[in-house]
Amino acid sequence: MDETLLMLPGPTNVAPRVLNAIAKNVVNHRSAIFGEIYTETTELMSKLFKTENNSYLITGSGTAAMEAAIANVTAKDDEILNVIGGKFGERLRDITKAHGGKVNELNIEWGTAVTAQQIKDALDENENIKAVSVVHNETSTGVATDIKAIGKVMDNYDALYIVDTVSSLGGDYVDVDKYKIDICFTGSQKCLAAPPGMAAITLSDDAWKVVDSVDSNTYYLDLKKYRKSGAGTPPETPYTPSVTLIYGIYEALKMIEEEGLDKRIVRHETAAKATREAAKALGLELFPQEEVSSTTVTAIKMPKGVSDSDLRGTMRNDYKVELAGGQDHLKGNIFRIGHMGNITYKQLAITFSSLAMTLKRLGFDVDLGAGVCAVNDTYM
Amino acid sequence: MDETLLMLPGPTNVAPRVLNAIAKNVVNHRSAIFGEIYTETTELMSKLFKTENNSYLITGSGTAAMEAAIANVTAKDDEILNVIGGKFGERLRDITKAHGGKVNELNIEWGTAVTAQQIKDALDENENIKAVSVVHNETSTGVATDIKAIGKVMDNYDALYIVDTVSSLGGDYVDVDKYKIDICFTGSQKCLAAPPGMAAITLSDDAWKVVDSVDSNTYYLDLKKYRKSGAGTPPETPYTPSVTLIYGIYEALKMIEEEGLDKRIVRHETAAKATREAAKALGLELFPQEEVSSTTVTAIKMPKGVSDSDLRGTMRNDYKVELAGGQDHLKGNIFRIGHMGNITYKQLAITFSSLAMTLKRLGFDVDLGAGVCAVNDTYM
Repeated sequence: MDETLLMLPGPTNVAPRVLNAIAKNVVNHRSAIFGEIYTETTELMSKLFKTENNSYLITGSGTAAMEAAIANVTAKDDEILNVIGGKFGERLRDITKAHGGKVNELNIEWGTAVTAQQIKDALDENENIKAVSVVHNETSTGVATDIKAIGKVMDNYDALYIVDTVSSLGGDYVDVDKYKIDICFTGSQKCLAAPPGMAAITLSDDAWKVVDSVDSNTYYLDLKKYRKSGAGTPPETPYTPSVTLIYGIYEALKMIEEEGLDKRIVRHETAAKATREAAKALGLELFPQEEVSSTTVTAIKMPKGVSDSDLRGTMRNDYKVELAGGQDHLKGNIFRIGHMGNITYKQLAITFSSLAMTLKRLGFDVDLGAGVCAVNDTYM
Repeated sequence: MDETLLMLPGPTNVAPRVLNAIAKNVVNHRSAIFGEIYTETTELMSKLFKTENNSYLITGSGTAAMEAAIANVTAKDDEILNVIGGKFGERLRDITKAHGGKVNELNIEWGTAVTAQQIKDALDENENIKAVSVVHNETSTGVATDIKAIGKVMDNYDALYIVDTVSSLGGDYVDVDKYKIDICFTGSQKCLAAPPGMAAITLSDDAWKVVDSVDSNTYYLDLKKYRKSGAGTPPETPYTPSVTLIYGIYEALKMIEEEGLDKRIVRHETAAKATREAAKALGLELFPQEEVSSTTVTAIKMPKGVSDSDLRGTMRNDYKVELAGGQDHLKGNIFRIGHMGNITYKQLAITFSSLAMTLKRLGFDVDLGAGVCAVNDTYM
């Protein structure tokens, strides 16, 4: 099997302990024994979301949760404010459109973060806004948004506050109840460091009121069904879930608990700082404004004259380190280093060791130790 | 971990070889190495569907594929003929409604199978029927439908032929191209005997024409995106897939290939016959008409005066054999024995050994060896 080091913004390297967990016998998903696993896992999810509300597991990728969040609260012609500063903001807009919502775009320059004031202005401008979608950590640009500050604004408006924490939950500060978030969701393969294929979502009472008032045109992602099945005896999912992945998420959540969430977030912050410093030490330029840069993924401008396949191809083929490229119009213009999940100085030492050699081979005059030195400096 | 023998119509007992496969390292789903796994797996799926067309993998349960099949071809007020003889026929109707389709119900008594003539009559009665949904193997009632005969009828009409083979593909005869099926789909945890959480779907050229003409209101299940990503370099899925489950499905499909599909189907037929004979030998009555009984799951009437928890509870708690109950109005009135996937005489010997003891304890005058004797008779 492939042993390439994944330095991606998902999927991340999965711990052997989690891989062992998913290889256990499949149990009946309509049995008491599954009900226990389901309950323990969703309770750990709610704890991670920092909410008193229930969480639900969706068998699907993060995009399924994005659609569930939008589709269940959007009736035809409902006005939705979609903040767009990257690919995932665009995706939430496209989903809003697909479900007949009237899109209000709040476009910000890719690489920058929306401010609470901008959200306030947009809400003041159109009092019919029913919900606002914000991407906490825009994976495509490496930008983190101040969802706490936005939450303070949202608290003064009736509009639902929908926050995509697919690539941040478990690696950055998310406090659903304190930030007044109405709908929050995440994916299994990002900071949770479980394999891909599951998503989780939680809704506030206010959100459920809206869900109950909307005749959604989605079936598989109809959250009313998840609520009903989750409250059953035994608790279960409406449709056959990915039982093995739930084993994996449970194990991954236990690992987070053992590490301690605050300690884990500091570890992510350290890795992010080390990555930024190491990139700069190798003469590279960060793509986003540094003050809003993500704690889980760092976007770096592609050096002039270097193609994506030169840089990432060499890293992958010769050094067995997989970085992410840019998406859409950023393709070829940036590359991204994911440092989410279980990343420590070890993986960063490997990454910047190989990145330095790659740049040297591409003709750049780099100090081969400068990247790793900056990593070590940060960790010291 | 739980060692209960699953005699369910999914999930089924997963072979250690498949469980080992899913515990392998997660690779990047946007890499050439994943593209190879994806291509090999979808090619094996098409081979199993017996179609020249491409297959696509959806991270989700069988219900996600059901919705994909309906949502992508149903525009508002399109007339869809839903054949309903059980819970999954109903589900396809509910999905049709959710997507704005005009439902034409063809209701048949639960426990019986729709005939090709009934389909023909329904199509002759309403020439606006755009698509017909048929459940090949109605898991809720243990009935198999003659999808080959219906295919001969469908060939004379423009309406799309949508066949749900979630609980039959790999255990009963399905020949997508020969039966003129336009949209066919299945789940990972039934006859494929992989863990739950993935679905597969294939579409004919005629079906794609309709898909291209419909502005679907689904995003995650928008099949146009699966076609586009599947044709990319490397081939991939539009959204992060359940990589580990794809490893599992690949391994399960290799096992099917090694066994040989025809041999495997005969094995399922033998298990079905053994189950029916053994049930009758214990004085039990089959729920469906025997001539249309399923090769993958047998539905049996609950003996008079026995509750579901008496029978299935004793089997589960005292004998560690898990059977399925009835669903909806059949709850408490039937129980079901799944014999799909890797089932041989061994699991049936255990099942009918424990079922005989359970019935005896519930006060029935049964010959404790009669069930297993009938199993052995069938296999001899």
